[in-house]
This record gives sequence, structure tokens and C-alpha cells, in this order.
Amino acid sequence: MDKFLVIGERIHCISPAIRKALAERDTAPIFKRAKEQIEAGADYIDVNIGPAEKDGEEIMTWAVKAIQEEFDNVPLALDTVNRKAIEAGLKVYNKENGKAIINSADAGPRIDLFELAGQYDAKIIGLCAKEGIPRDCEERIAYCTEMLEKAMEAGVDPDDILFDPLFLVVKGMQEKQSDVLEAIRQITEMGLKTTGGLSNISNGAPKHVRPIMDAAFAAMAMQCGLSSAIINPCDKELMDTIKTCDVVKNNILYADSYLDL
Amino acid sequence: MDKFLVIGERIHCISPAIRKALAERDTAPIFKRAKEQIEAGADYIDVNIGPAEKDGEEIMTWAVKAIQEEFDNVPLALDTVNRKAIEAGLKVYNKENGKAIINSADAGPRIDLFELAGQYDAKIIGLCAKEGIPRDCEERIAYCTEMLEKAMEAGVDPDDILFDPLFLVVKGMQEKQSDVLEAIRQITEMGLKTTGGLSNISNGAPKHVRPIMDAAFAAMAMQCGLSSAIINPCDKELMDTIKTCDVVKNNILYADSYLDL
Repeated sequence: MDKFLVIGERIHCISPAIRKALAERDTAPIFKRAKEQIEAGADYIDVNIGPAEKDGEEIMTWAVKAIQEEFDNVPLALDTVNRKAIEAGLKVYNKENGKAIINSADAGPRIDLFELAGQYDAKIIGLCAKEGIPRDCEERIAYCTEMLEKAMEAGVDPDDILFDPLFLVVKGMQEKQSDVLEAIRQITEMGLKTTGGLSNISNGAPKHVRPIMDAAFAAMAMQCGLSSAIINPCDKELMDTIKTCDVVKNNILYADSYLDL
Repeated sequence: MDKFLVIGERIHCISPAIRKALAERDTAPIFKRAKEQIEAGADYIDVNIGPAEKDGEEIMTWAVKAIQEEFDNVPLALDTVNRKAIEAGLKVYNKENGKAIINSADAGPRIDLFELAGQYDAKIIGLCAKEGIPRDCEERIAYCTEMLEKAMEAGVDPDDILFDPLFLVVKGMQEKQSDVLEAIRQITEMGLKTTGGLSNISNGAPKHVRPIMDAAFAAMAMQCGLSSAIINPCDKELMDTIKTCDVVKNNILYADSYLDL
């Protein structure tokens, strides 16, 4: 199987520094985080510009061009609910080192984004949700197949879709975790790929506990077939775990130095 | 599901200090390791006296009585290939806090140990092997069912058997790991319990890498259903991972302090 795909989550408008940098078109804080994530082993860099209702197209165009020019056309995930901003980003995106990822479609109002993926030959994340949180594994699989159908109509290769089972916080939703993991297993058995915002699971847990939870959950999810995640690649414990699971799954070759590669 | 069962592995004749203590009937080094393991969260303490061909019966009798008297009848795993020594230990074992575990039967020459388990109402580890290393998952399952049949004839409750899939070293046997994990999954699906010497998987890896490998592998195995392991409970990274997987699997209740419980 392919090695696990790491999408770095740290260029996110939830960070005040990034929000300010996006508003002022200041590359320095953005490049700093891009560099750190690439050095830590991110395969893709997520660029979350928030809803950006006013100037989303301008911001996404600027960010995509700036980051790709600075970092040898590093592959990006374009992350906003503003469809026009996604499209503006796709127009200037250089796919030399990998197709763009559209982050994200769902089985509800955002299902039309699969058309954009087909049109621009992009990868796309499909959130297994329609309205609110899916009840169980079965509901996730139903949304997965709805999206798959829509994507294929739009000419998207199933291999270019990353299905997001919607990770849920453990604290308060402990009994729902087996549904998420089982959904990953079933989607994987269908020959499809998966991803998601893994650190959701440790929301609200004490700060020193979160990396432990994220790492253990990542290993459980990778055993179910999880093929990608949107994470902080600078969390060394999590990255070490991902590399180890890739070794156990025979996705990468063992070497005594595998953690440093 | 039941919380993961931790069998502490540190009273083992491979350690020169323990070998000497067993030979000289010196309780101090043995009690020290028992105490450390109980405090670290071990549910059972494994007592490995080696082949002990000469005085195995005496040693096991002495060790079982000494450890159980000192530590409030802590449950023990009696670990030796010397059948008479196992039986001697079972004769003096106090099951107030849990049945003894016989470590271990297999599908080959040691299959008769299931009779001992029936006779003394003990739990027993059944190694899914006959001669040498099982080729694949199927061979493991075949041995599992052979042992299950034998055990039931001997009056052993299937719930008292811990099937050991035989963990293999990753370094050099990377492509065999999926067979081990799949065997755990299939044995679990049969409603049976599993255990094993987990740290085998990281043999030969650099010292700082071993806890990372053991922890990631434990999480993968627990996702497949692994219900117990013979480990070093003083490895905090591994124990934290086991507790986290128990939380994710809803075997224990989440609390912000769950790692300290």
C-alpha cells in the first residue's frame, strides 16, 4: 500500500498570526509555518483561509502562488467553504508535484464541489456528513457511496477522493469512536482512501495527554486502513507513530534509522 | 469489552539478578520487581523460572508462595517449560484475586498442559504454533482451533484461554506482521481472548526506537482485538497507549486523569 499521506494543518486562519498575515498579505509567518511543516515531513500543506466571504478569491490566489513559488511547487490543500476562492486557487495552482486537494466537499450542500475537482483535475476530500454529525457507521457509508457516485459522474477518479469519516471528540463521545473506526475499515475495504482532522479526537483533553491520544488513535485508525490525515506534522510523537505503522504495514521499508527519514 | 489485561514480564530468569535470586531463594530482588510492576499497573505478574530442570518444583513452589504472601495474593502467570514445576506452583497457588495463568501450552508437544488447566481450574496461554514459526494467519487459526478443542475436552472454559498469535520481530520479518494482526482479528471474532510477548516485535531495533514501536504496534493490535499482553508495565509510553486504546474502545471511562488511574 502507499505510504501514509500527511497533510499539514498549521496554516489555518484560526491562528491569530495567520489570520493577520492573510489579511495583510504578509508572507513571513506563512512561509515560516510552511517550512516547519515541510521539514517535519508533511506531504501536503493545508491552506485554510476561513470563510473569507469578502476577498477569498484574492487571498487564495495570493497564498497559493506565494507558497508554491517559495517552496518548489509544494502540493497544497485549498481549505475554505468559499467555492469561488477554491476555484481561484485551482486556476493558479501548479500541479508539478501533486494535484491540489479541495478541502472539502460533503454529501450535503457542498456536494457540487466534486464538479470542480473533475473540471480542474484536483483531488478532493469528501466529508461523510450531510447535516450535523452522522449517527453511526452505516450513515457514513451511505454518504460515502452518494459522494462516490456524484464524483464519478463528474469525472473524478475514485483514487483522487479522500473520504473523511468525521473524527469525533473522545471526551463526551467515547461510545461513538468504534463507528468512526469501523467506517474507515469499510471504506478501505471498498478500495477507497480516507483522511480527516485526527486531532479532533483529543479536543478538550489536558494538553500533555493530547499527543498520546492522537498517536494511539492514529495507530488504531491506520490499522483500519486510514491512508491520510490532516495533522500537525511538528508533533513528533504522532509522526513517529505514523512512520512506525507504515513500517508494520510494510508500506515503507524498515531501517534502524526509519524515524529520522 | 473487558479492560486490557497486563501481564508484567520482569520476573524472568533471563535477568542475571533474577536468576541469582531464584537460585539462592533471595526474595529481595524478586519483590522489588513485583512491587514496581504492581505499582505500574500490572494485573498479573509473570514468574519465569527458566527450564529449571533440576529443582523447578521447589523453585516454583517457593516463588509462588513468597510473592503471593508478600503482595496480597497477586495473580501470577507460571512460566516454564517444566510441567512438574507448573503443577507444583498450581498446588500452592491462591486464586483469591484471580486464577493462575499457565504460560504456556502450544499445539505441539505442550498441548497436554490444557489438562493441567482443567484439573487445577487455571487460565492458560495457548501459543498458536506447533513446530517453529507458523507460516501465516491460516496456520495460526488452525492451531487455535486444535487447542480450543483439546481445552474443551479437558474442561477448560474458552474464556480462560489466552491465545498467543506469536508476535514476530519487525526487523527482518516486516511482511509477516499483517498475518499476526489478522490472526488476532480472527481469533477475536471467534469470541476468544488473545495475548503474547509484544516486545518481540521491536527486537534488534535501536533502544530509543523500541518503546515507540511497541506502543504503536500495541494500538494496532488492540484495534484488532488484542485483549492482553505480556509486557514491561514500567514502560510508561506503552502503558499510556494501552490505557488510551481502552478509552477509545470504551472499555474504561474517559476522565481527564485517566493516564494516572
